[in-house]
Amino acid sequence: MKFVLTIGTTETARIDGISAAGATPELMAHTPSADAEILAYGRPTNAPVVPVSPSGCPTPAVVTRAARELLGFESVVVDAGTASDTTAPTVTLPGAPGADIRTPEAVPDAEATFDAARAFGASLPDDELVLAETIPGGTTTAKGVLTALGEETGVSSSLPENPTTLKRRVVGEALEASDLSPGAAAGAPLDAVRAVGDPVLAAVSGLAVGALESGTAVTLGGGTQMSAVAALVRHFGLTDSLTQATTSFIAADDAADVRSLADALDVDLRVTAPGFEGVDHPATNAYVRGEAKEGVGMGGALALVAGSETAADVAALRDRVRDVYDRLLANAPETHPAVDGERVD
Amino acid sequence: MKFVLTIGTTETARIDGISAAGATPELMAHTPSADAEILAYGRPTNAPVVPVSPSGCPTPAVVTRAARELLGFESVVVDAGTASDTTAPTVTLPGAPGADIRTPEAVPDAEATFDAARAFGASLPDDELVLAETIPGGTTTAKGVLTALGEETGVSSSLPENPTTLKRRVVGEALEASDLSPGAAAGAPLDAVRAVGDPVLAAVSGLAVGALESGTAVTLGGGTQMSAVAALVRHFGLTDSLTQATTSFIAADDAADVRSLADALDVDLRVTAPGFEGVDHPATNAYVRGEAKEGVGMGGALALVAGSETAADVAALRDRVRDVYDRLLANAPETHPAVDGERVD
Repeated sequence: MKFVLTIGTTETARIDGISAAGATPELMAHTPSADAEILAYGRPTNAPVVPVSPSGCPTPAVVTRAARELLGFESVVVDAGTASDTTAPTVTLPGAPGADIRTPEAVPDAEATFDAARAFGASLPDDELVLAETIPGGTTTAKGVLTALGEETGVSSSLPENPTTLKRRVVGEALEASDLSPGAAAGAPLDAVRAVGDPVLAAVSGLAVGALESGTAVTLGGGTQMSAVAALVRHFGLTDSLTQATTSFIAADDAADVRSLADALDVDLRVTAPGFEGVDHPATNAYVRGEAKEGVGMGGALALVAGSETAADVAALRDRVRDVYDRLLANAPETHPAVDGERVD
Repeated sequence: MKFVLTIGTTETARIDGISAAGATPELMAHTPSADAEILAYGRPTNAPVVPVSPSGCPTPAVVTRAARELLGFESVVVDAGTASDTTAPTVTLPGAPGADIRTPEAVPDAEATFDAARAFGASLPDDELVLAETIPGGTTTAKGVLTALGEETGVSSSLPENPTTLKRRVVGEALEASDLSPGAAAGAPLDAVRAVGDPVLAAVSGLAVGALESGTAVTLGGGTQMSAVAALVRHFGLTDSLTQATTSFIAADDAADVRSLADALDVDLRVTAPGFEGVDHPATNAYVRGEAKEGVGMGGALALVAGSETAADVAALRDRVRDVYDRLLANAPETHPAVDGERVD
């Protein structure tokens, strides 16, 4: 098994109020790089911040890193097009940061990114890939792609109050800018990604298709962005069995159609609860309040812990989450307001 | 502890008869990428070949990968400038493949590469780094740098018959092309690398300096190329304790001054024997005949196995080396003549 985190950015995240994957819109551009470094090294090595939401919710990379420390699984970071440099080791695909989906072409390199990801996915010797993503603004691009493909479009949010009206308006403008009507890209997944998607969707769908075609099992670790990946795989014509592993926070989100999308796309949905309700710690409290919910493969990491045959279990994970968070804070750049705020706790 | 493999290429390797780190000069350009993929995934994923010498000796990446499978240590690949693409995850430094050292500037970007490596080495949270290299032609550039610094210059070779006369002539021409006399770059390590070194020497010395400056212990895993790195660190002015871990094949090589260089540079030399004499297998026989000797951190990997507190020992390593090699051959590109030749065994 290999855990493959794909990182990227899209200008769509700069639309006011669309994402909480960073304390400010400027810092959000560093979130994918920081997430990759936290997964690889346990803390940011080049990114200037520990990603937190505006209210201080720490990135789900903390949970995924904790799972990796507990189980020792191998991870690889794939860079599909990121606006901020990282010193995490990356497999760099052809591509670039995505444009605002309200422009005619959000991902001009969609095909090149997909093709390279497909070849890479097929080349790995592993029997299973767990695919994960980090891209601020990704639920909005996922909604764009699901709409263009003609699938259900309820998506989740990293914000406690999902800005669904705003997302619907942005996706409407995005389709109009690309001369697409809902469902017009059915059966043409790369057209959907190119017009209204993001580089991470191009890469993760390519990884999934390449892996499945070469006989490698695929688990999509994530929420509605991974529902969009599943839809892309199905619209590509693949009927292989496909698992999606997400968090209980996503499953409990009425705005997200993860369950009905999984049914419609013939995806085996696994939901894992981290049991954060029983903990009182800044690393976990924000999740209980409904923030973040998923990302950086958190649901996939939880499923790996819950399904592990070693001594690791979800209780051990909770302790490790606190460790990883406390280490992160001990080394956090002092200039970060939200993290400094948390330090008082 | 983290194992950091730096990859790169230099046009110096194309000088006829200088290196055995590939079946042909054309294939040699792919050796660092293939080594990185073998370390990361167990087999080449993008590189078109399994690196073997012209006589069929497999790359020491086989031994290092075997040690990693046995001990489960984390590894990172740093790309200092490589002529061939890789799909191993890499931390990419500013830089480019090195020029033939018989040109005025072999590594124009030496300072930028060194600076970025230094910052990266300082940023890692580990208590120890084991540094390794793979660059065909690297013993010749190491001899160039040692000469420019005014240190002893006996270097090893991946060939059973070390082409010492050829190397001496090439280094003489290289110094002349750069207007340097032996010892002229003493105290100016980056001048030595820029004039007659290679991008891997720039990167590994930067990693070592950054790690030592931030309180991280450093083990240089390799032979005479790591002696050159130790010399660069000392000429940079650092007096911190420094360990070099190499193979018994290097220590037994009279042409290589590893022991006396270690003494002169105040380096603690650890020599580990893999016990390949007791094995009859194509993965190990060539080493017993005196080929390859070291590379891809083989000596560092052997030291980790020998010093491990787990059940792993050097006997288990030998079994694992055979496994890794057999898996490599089972998946080798069919067009590779030397590997196909070995398949008959």
